[in-house]
Amino acid sequence: MTASSWAMPSPLPTSPVLLAAYRARAAAADLAPLPRAVKDDALLAIADALIVRTQEIVAANAQDVAKAEAAGTSPAIVDRLTLTRERVAAIAADVRHVAGLPDPVGEVVRGSTLPNGLDLRQVRVPLGVVGIIYEARPNVTVDAAALCLKSGNAVLLRGSSSAYTSNNALVTVLRDAVGGAGLPADAIQLVPGESRESVTELMRARGMVDVLIPRGGADLIRTVVEGSTVPVIETGTGNCHVYVDADADLDTAVRILVNSKAQRVSVCNSAETLLVHRDIAERFLPLALDALAEAGVTVHGDSRVLELAEAAGSKATVVAATMDDWETEYLSYDISAAVVDSLDAAVGHIRLWSSGHTEAIVTSSQPAARRFTQLVDAAAVMVNASTRFTDGGQFGFGAEIGISTQKLHARGPMGLPELTSTKFVVTGDGHIR
Amino acid sequence: MTASSWAMPSPLPTSPVLLAAYRARAAAADLAPLPRAVKDDALLAIADALIVRTQEIVAANAQDVAKAEAAGTSPAIVDRLTLTRERVAAIAADVRHVAGLPDPVGEVVRGSTLPNGLDLRQVRVPLGVVGIIYEARPNVTVDAAALCLKSGNAVLLRGSSSAYTSNNALVTVLRDAVGGAGLPADAIQLVPGESRESVTELMRARGMVDVLIPRGGADLIRTVVEGSTVPVIETGTGNCHVYVDADADLDTAVRILVNSKAQRVSVCNSAETLLVHRDIAERFLPLALDALAEAGVTVHGDSRVLELAEAAGSKATVVAATMDDWETEYLSYDISAAVVDSLDAAVGHIRLWSSGHTEAIVTSSQPAARRFTQLVDAAAVMVNASTRFTDGGQFGFGAEIGISTQKLHARGPMGLPELTSTKFVVTGDGHIR
Repeated sequence: MTASSWAMPSPLPTSPVLLAAYRARAAAADLAPLPRAVKDDALLAIADALIVRTQEIVAANAQDVAKAEAAGTSPAIVDRLTLTRERVAAIAADVRHVAGLPDPVGEVVRGSTLPNGLDLRQVRVPLGVVGIIYEARPNVTVDAAALCLKSGNAVLLRGSSSAYTSNNALVTVLRDAVGGAGLPADAIQLVPGESRESVTELMRARGMVDVLIPRGGADLIRTVVEGSTVPVIETGTGNCHVYVDADADLDTAVRILVNSKAQRVSVCNSAETLLVHRDIAERFLPLALDALAEAGVTVHGDSRVLELAEAAGSKATVVAATMDDWETEYLSYDISAAVVDSLDAAVGHIRLWSSGHTEAIVTSSQPAARRFTQLVDAAAVMVNASTRFTDGGQFGFGAEIGISTQKLHARGPMGLPELTSTKFVVTGDGHIR
Repeated sequence: MTASSWAMPSPLPTSPVLLAAYRARAAAADLAPLPRAVKDDALLAIADALIVRTQEIVAANAQDVAKAEAAGTSPAIVDRLTLTRERVAAIAADVRHVAGLPDPVGEVVRGSTLPNGLDLRQVRVPLGVVGIIYEARPNVTVDAAALCLKSGNAVLLRGSSSAYTSNNALVTVLRDAVGGAGLPADAIQLVPGESRESVTELMRARGMVDVLIPRGGADLIRTVVEGSTVPVIETGTGNCHVYVDADADLDTAVRILVNSKAQRVSVCNSAETLLVHRDIAERFLPLALDALAEAGVTVHGDSRVLELAEAAGSKATVVAATMDDWETEYLSYDISAAVVDSLDAAVGHIRLWSSGHTEAIVTSSQPAARRFTQLVDAAAVMVNASTRFTDGGQFGFGAEIGISTQKLHARGPMGLPELTSTKFVVTGDGHIR
């Protein structure tokens, strides 16, 4: 009798979501002890299957796209939703890349022989069942499944209903490939049903689902964080600041500001607020405003920014900032800007408004850099570098399941090790207390 | 203007609990950058103050004790509640011990220079504001405060109302000592009010409290886990199993079984269920039953255990087990017992009923030990060692804030590092993407 068959309760739950969770638990029990080679073979089988079955995937996706267009969805969203032969090939390539990454499972995190002779080892193990709740992009379906499989976890995928047909086709391909490789297909499942209730059930499946990772907009994340009894890893929301210190090099500051704001505005690590030390404001702001104007960025400035913009006769679009601007994650060609009296004042502003994602200081002063990095409480603090570097790929993690903005378990970009827990294995010769 | 004063919102919240949380946040901002020496001095000041002011602490405690006795509380609970001069001295000694432990804050967890020349460092930082919800023992008040202060965290303490006067006196002493050492007294606060509502408010203070750690009975922990929007670290509940494999050495198995069950029955790492491989049951059970009988343990056996007990004419007290017995954490001189057909059957039983705390196998077979440690999903897996070793002190962590039975952030005994998060510090020379 196999352990996994034992892991199934009787009678089986009648709710489709809970039944999926139970099946995932059983599959996770079988995945946990698998050696890397077996998991990598399954990942390569997935990549092959995605290529071989591209046509049925693209066909299924076309239905979602047609529905979205009929519903008058914005072209940007429709583009995010669309799968082409090229995009499926890129997704398959990403899966091959994951197969090439080291397996975190089995890593000995710490170990020692205790004074009494007991051998103590803390070993990385899979979390078990990971639930991912995400929006539009169907590529997340494959990314998340690949990272969970590599780290020995079963995954329950709950994409947006607007991509249901696409996700369904993708998961069918993944399950067939995993099953064909001799692994339990239930390691990868789409959460049944397109209703809100199925999400609620997933959020309440404590004891059956080990962690929920919401990926998407602030509303989605808040809903999951506040409604779940399952432990949640909060991701994504980024109200990032760039602080230009009194001792900043002007060209460096402009370059970092523009890159942080405008290199890609739709992502969580883009800058949303500029803070400038009063002693450099008169020299820096005219340059900064012109550069932002060239990048097509509208500035929401406080009174001192407005004065200096006028005094400089800047051609930039500068409007008066409201309280709301300080807490807004624009994700657009907008930035709020304020002049502050000191580094500590900048830190105080960041403490009040930051989402704890990424904060940057531009300065030539070592003491200022040291104080800023000590006092600012965020997943990532940049010194003379763009906020855009907060990214699993940029950090060299090889892959990213999301960027945690909470402090428990994982903070910042999450790679494969963040999809694991640990287990203490203690070995003796009949030791007793 | 100091950062912490900036961290105070205006207007201040009117709820006493939220106001305490805000004050704690401000204090945490001041604690975070403190070097070890400053924190250790404050801890030593606390230890001194506990000795100097023992009389007022014992006097306050006497009021709680009198109230408890008047309410007909059991002598065991009254004893847990009672503070004597000796016990206060022991508590002070524990605080000195914490001062001697290494400071986890500032440890570089990982670091590298990225291909583009950026310096990446992942550094340990305090969690911020830690909330502890606990029962009876007033010594937890000081233990928890000392461990949080050492790790740079502010702490909100919510003890049971039966110990309110004692906790109030202790926290007064701690705050005076911390303030006298030049640190913010608000780093250590008793949650105002003895009502259930104050607990609920604490559990809902997401964004102001970084983590809640419930310490106490299963009901308390379930209430906090299910009612909190603040992240929770689940602790304590231990339905631990001892599995005696077909290849076990009989004397070793008896010794480990009796120690795991009876060395101290009231703790979470004591054993609650015995599983015996059928091939060794006939030889092992008679010895085990006699040894358990000598230790005063009542056995709740399945049909096969009952048969073998009768066949062996054992003098042990053996009653028929019900379904409930398999999931019961007795914390008493009781143990459930079953004969299983195989190691995988034992693993299956553990999967169904374990609370994921500590599971032990007794075996002389290396393949069996390997398979058991791979398949059993628990915070600690013991091979030929007593379940009683799952303990921060035994593991050499120097201190323990609790034993996590969840998989996120921390699993198993939690020491000072488990009271920290991390922060990525990225340093460049004007790097942009």
